[in-house]
Amino acid sequence: MLSTAIAVLDWFGVIVFAVTGALVASRKRMDLVGFALLGTVTAIGGGTLRDVLLGLSPVFWVREPAYLVTCVLVSGLVFFTAHIPESRYRALLWLDAVGLASFAATGGATAMLAGAGPIAAIAMGLITATFGGILRDVLGGESPMILRREIYVSAAFVAVATVVFMGAAGMSREVTLVSGFAVGLLVRGAALYWNWSLPRYHPRPGHDPKERGRCP
Amino acid sequence: MLSTAIAVLDWFGVIVFAVTGALVASRKRMDLVGFALLGTVTAIGGGTLRDVLLGLSPVFWVREPAYLVTCVLVSGLVFFTAHIPESRYRALLWLDAVGLASFAATGGATAMLAGAGPIAAIAMGLITATFGGILRDVLGGESPMILRREIYVSAAFVAVATVVFMGAAGMSREVTLVSGFAVGLLVRGAALYWNWSLPRYHPRPGHDPKERGRCP
Amino acid sequence: MLSTAIAVLDWFGVIVFAVTGALVASRKRMDLVGFALLGTVTAIGGGTLRDVLLGLSPVFWVREPAYLVTCVLVSGLVFFTAHIPESRYRALLWLDAVGLASFAATGGATAMLAGAGPIAAIAMGLITATFGGILRDVLGGESPMILRREIYVSAAFVAVATVVFMGAAGMSREVTLVSGFAVGLLVRGAALYWNWSLPRYHPRPGHDPKERGRCP
Repeated sequence: MLSTAIAVLDWFGVIVFAVTGALVASRKRMDLVGFALLGTVTAIGGGTLRDVLLGLSPVFWVREPAYLVTCVLVSGLVFFTAHIPESRYRALLWLDAVGLASFAATGGATAMLAGAGPIAAIAMGLITATFGGILRDVLGGESPMILRREIYVSAAFVAVATVVFMGAAGMSREVTLVSGFAVGLLVRGAALYWNWSLPRYHPRPGHDPKERGRCP
Repeated sequence: MLSTAIAVLDWFGVIVFAVTGALVASRKRMDLVGFALLGTVTAIGGGTLRDVLLGLSPVFWVREPAYLVTCVLVSGLVFFTAHIPESRYRALLWLDAVGLASFAATGGATAMLAGAGPIAAIAMGLITATFGGILRDVLGGESPMILRREIYVSAAFVAVATVVFMGAAGMSREVTLVSGFAVGLLVRGAALYWNWSLPRYHPRPGHDPKERGRCP
Repeated sequence: MLSTAIAVLDWFGVIVFAVTGALVASRKRMDLVGFALLGTVTAIGGGTLRDVLLGLSPVFWVREPAYLVTCVLVSGLVFFTAHIPESRYRALLWLDAVGLASFAATGGATAMLAGAGPIAAIAMGLITATFGGILRDVLGGESPMILRREIYVSAAFVAVATVVFMGAAGMSREVTLVSGFAVGLLVRGAALYWNWSLPRYHPRPGHDPKERGRCP
């Protein structure tokens, strides 16, 4: 169903995201079942929603249960090793960046293979990249990473747009995927490192009642 | 796929709901990407869940990406104009009422076209009308509008029930849709204006431990 | 579509879960519409997600609207009788245990009927058993039952694993389902009664900055 290049990058993303889910479970001091649950949901959530919206049914992990087994094993491994990294939250942030970039690339490529046009493929890349992390943060009671101030969705956008445009230009799937992944990781990594963010909406003075009170 | 009458009202609802999503983003001072995300999710969330549950796949915006483009453009417009209304929350409440009524009507009509019976069609109208707003409020961290004390789901129910019964009576689709929309908007508008609400559950005195403490 | 044995246990679970949804609505003093909404979503949420992921479309309650009618009627009944039990939260906990065990059993059996392998069938049983309750707790603003410290998901796992392995061993569907249900209810009931829980993740001393501060 999936080409080999997509499958390789997809497995990479699954494992990385499973680790982030298990790390959130460790921050909440859950038991082994909580680790398995959060690791699995984070890793397969985005791809599951993508498959449902594209009408690829049953979803990928019903056809290939090896995904489920891997997520549970990875989460179990984290249960016994999560004390090793110096800062679990820093590890979480950076692994999430890696997963974001890989799923943005594979999500867009999978959507194009399933016949979606370029705009829908970009939307599918964003969904695949972000939905697992949203589930992880909501179920784990963390403040959602998607709402952090540094550039996040935009990094996924750059990744999937690269894949879609290089794909439309007829370049080989391997080059396309690796380029999208690299560009996305670079943008998100730079945003994390230098605290890049986009300008925020700011109400004009005088219109916001709270603002009015503050400046006499 | 959809008849013209449904499509017109549906586009109307999409634009109105995209504005409400972007208004919530403005209340949270998000960046342009946050506006686009919240506007789009609010506008297409309900219809997406409806299509998935009915088995219409891929979902409508994969087939017609103009929906995605419109949502992003509308959200971007709100980013630069959200300071204009006197009260953004009041604008949000009333636009949400308009979107609720239009999606209840089109959701029910779409479900009947797809072969659903009257009861399932009513459920689909409620889902189409409310799910986008639920996503908006959860992702934007607002208290969910569906839990407000004034009549909300009931207004959507009246709208979709009107469409389903007039449709079953064989009336023309245009008249049916406009009637459902008008009735729903009237009920929700009246509820907002006069604070209409349904009686709430109230535990009998003596059974609630907190109550017992209070009346000696 | 479903065999009679599955249908009977499924209806049982639907009614029990609808009561738990309505009980949460009563704890939040919602109106009749809120009861109907929360009762219905809790009762059909898990099976709906299962059908969507398996690609059984449209979902079961579009084909059999009697489910919707029943949920609304049961929720309405609770609206007028929720003051009767001594402790509504205790009733909620135990009815949730019954629903969990029945949906784990029927969810796994339905997935196998739809052609899923044993691992995917176990995942479907867990999803069917837990998703309705997650929706109930999120929409009702309760702390999610799935995160409670006593064994919860593990009880559902034991139930569905029993069904899948006895099914693979060729035993009759009636015996299989009843065994899975009984085992799951026993485990969850014992966990509630004796406060059984699994060991939790605990960071090694010295690695957690808060820990370091506390032990001089």
